[in-house]
Amino acid sequence: MIVYMPNNPIPNLEFTISHEDAQSDARRASFKLPHGTLQTPMFMPVGTYGTVKALTPKDLKDAKAQIILGNTFHLWLRPGLDVIKQFGGLHQFMGWDQPILTDSGGFQVFSLGALRKISEEGVTFASPVNGDKLFMSPEVSMEIQAGLNSDIAMQFDECTPFETGGIPTPEKTVRESLEMSLRWGARSLSRFRELETGNALFGIVQGGMYEHLRDASLAQIAEQGFDGTAIGGLSVGEPKPDFERVLAHIGPKLPKNKPRYLMGVGTPEDLVYGVSKGIDMFDCVMPTRNARNGWLFTRFGDLKIRNASYKTDNRPLDPTCGCYACKNFSRAYLHHLQKVGEILGAQLNSIHNIHYYLNLMSEIRESLEKNNFSDFVKQFHHNRAVGTMEITP
Amino acid sequence: MIVYMPNNPIPNLEFTISHEDAQSDARRASFKLPHGTLQTPMFMPVGTYGTVKALTPKDLKDAKAQIILGNTFHLWLRPGLDVIKQFGGLHQFMGWDQPILTDSGGFQVFSLGALRKISEEGVTFASPVNGDKLFMSPEVSMEIQAGLNSDIAMQFDECTPFETGGIPTPEKTVRESLEMSLRWGARSLSRFRELETGNALFGIVQGGMYEHLRDASLAQIAEQGFDGTAIGGLSVGEPKPDFERVLAHIGPKLPKNKPRYLMGVGTPEDLVYGVSKGIDMFDCVMPTRNARNGWLFTRFGDLKIRNASYKTDNRPLDPTCGCYACKNFSRAYLHHLQKVGEILGAQLNSIHNIHYYLNLMSEIRESLEKNNFSDFVKQFHHNRAVGTMEITP
Ligand SMILES: [Zn+2]
Ligand SMILES: [Zn+2]
Repeated sequence: MIVYMPNNPIPNLEFTISHEDAQSDARRASFKLPHGTLQTPMFMPVGTYGTVKALTPKDLKDAKAQIILGNTFHLWLRPGLDVIKQFGGLHQFMGWDQPILTDSGGFQVFSLGALRKISEEGVTFASPVNGDKLFMSPEVSMEIQAGLNSDIAMQFDECTPFETGGIPTPEKTVRESLEMSLRWGARSLSRFRELETGNALFGIVQGGMYEHLRDASLAQIAEQGFDGTAIGGLSVGEPKPDFERVLAHIGPKLPKNKPRYLMGVGTPEDLVYGVSKGIDMFDCVMPTRNARNGWLFTRFGDLKIRNASYKTDNRPLDPTCGCYACKNFSRAYLHHLQKVGEILGAQLNSIHNIHYYLNLMSEIRESLEKNNFSDFVKQFHHNRAVGTMEITP
Repeated sequence: MIVYMPNNPIPNLEFTISHEDAQSDARRASFKLPHGTLQTPMFMPVGTYGTVKALTPKDLKDAKAQIILGNTFHLWLRPGLDVIKQFGGLHQFMGWDQPILTDSGGFQVFSLGALRKISEEGVTFASPVNGDKLFMSPEVSMEIQAGLNSDIAMQFDECTPFETGGIPTPEKTVRESLEMSLRWGARSLSRFRELETGNALFGIVQGGMYEHLRDASLAQIAEQGFDGTAIGGLSVGEPKPDFERVLAHIGPKLPKNKPRYLMGVGTPEDLVYGVSKGIDMFDCVMPTRNARNGWLFTRFGDLKIRNASYKTDNRPLDPTCGCYACKNFSRAYLHHLQKVGEILGAQLNSIHNIHYYLNLMSEIRESLEKNNFSDFVKQFHHNRAVGTMEITP
């Protein structure tokens, strides 16, 4: 067992690797944070507005969620930092006493397109809620995230787009973007340390689909003294081979002694692949968003519950799943709820998908502890190809 | 204690009155049904499509719901009787093992307006789901309700409207309507007994706002041998004095030895008034529908959570309430969820409102057991007038 202390003098943070896979870059670790210790590799459900959509904090604990993600941009606009600060932070405001990670808000600000103006100092934009003129910068982002009191804050950066209007982002643009992100990263770190929150700050490696630019970004991020390292700008619309090529190149190179976080990823297959490339942490809206649209992930493949073949199917979504939805309801009932648009459908589907994702990561951790991760990966792909109509109840 | 056996030879049904209030017509009773024994007076949450909107069966049990209501018309159209029959009834299909009451579907069929055609035989109409031509009659309604296997079925009748196009329904029309309902009631009872479900069938007293027509309807309903007696055609848009006048007239006259059910009612005040007029059972969409719109019922008055005064209010909705929402979340958080349209807002508001309604009925039952119902009523009205901004956390 190797215990690493981050190189900032914050007593709350500690990263410990207990198992390393012999045949891949996968590792089993734990990450101590102010509101609890994370067991990695693990997945973080996304709670944009201070709620993981359609799930109560109790549902999340039943699914053994360790940490959730909040969106700084959304929470800054509504309910506003003044409200959340009055509660002492996001934990108390939303009734969640375990760790929280917040993004920087940069991704959403850049997504405003014509409504925003970028300069070296930061980004000026019109609030999509009430039109107010607002300004976001590395310093502002750190101050908001300190006010939210998230256990893990993210540096302010630009998520370089894969393409604009069908044209892949050219190398020169990718380089300029990542260089600005590096300068903003240094400013983020400087302001964050001044705020003395006791929380962690992660740097973000950019560089688009160019391996050498990823290397250039990582070289500087690794030197800047963040408490963890994230990969941004993947799963942003690029073809799967590009995703895997860049992840295989940069994942294993991230600093080994700090947690590694692949942002905004992905499918169950993406998660398994990411773990094999050394990733410890993932987040994605996919399990909850797809749940609301009736797209269920199961051990035996994906299942679109609106499909007429489920109308009289009395089997659970996944007979190997221990979630409340699978233990108590049939596919036929979930099909019905989806067809008539009942809120309970969104609730039960979300309970299942989050349970599936978190249980998948739990099984990955167990396989790493037992030194049979590669066998696990083979069985995982075999099972996922079985098909949800083929299984016996 | 007085035990009544309904006058049909069904061993599953038994109605027992344990306490009668000395100062009103209120009574404390129990009603044994195939899936459990109801403690009355009590309230039934409405689960139109086989789900009480935004609540899991577990949420309902946490709130101590005894029975829920399903809508025959909706369930007949979606998922369809064939699907539900395959599960052996609505209980298994929706994962609810306690009693269920179903309405007859008549109310929804009549609400179709120009799309339906009424004859003595029944109602022909076009399915609002797919346009199919459908036919509903007393016999069809009983067969569907038998397929749903609800513990309590309702006779097929016409709910006489209070007014049409602003003109109160004239006496002659009300009389003709109630007379057709009586003939349909006799046909309902005849077909229901043939089906030998072991479940209960309730008759429905109509007669609009005319006391003598209510009496005429009741005289025949009481003779027909139903297992319980309902009041229909109240809370259909009439002024509150008319509602109270008719209820005060007819409630205490309903057969004493059978359960009495006031359909589609109402506010907390309406429920307390109804109990004082001898009613045992209530149902209404109000607690769940209002919850989704941010209208919360509390001991200290109603609370519209969208109101800006709750933006930073760190108090629970109701400090005397033991529900999951009140135990874990502030008004400020619920205000935020409502403003951003999060599903969790609908969930938590529904949990609270259903808990409030069911707890109100539990307190009523306790007061009847302690012979202090009239004191309870005074305290209830006093509390409801306090105002939700006045209480200390
Ligand atoms: Zn499940
Ligand atoms: Zn409550």
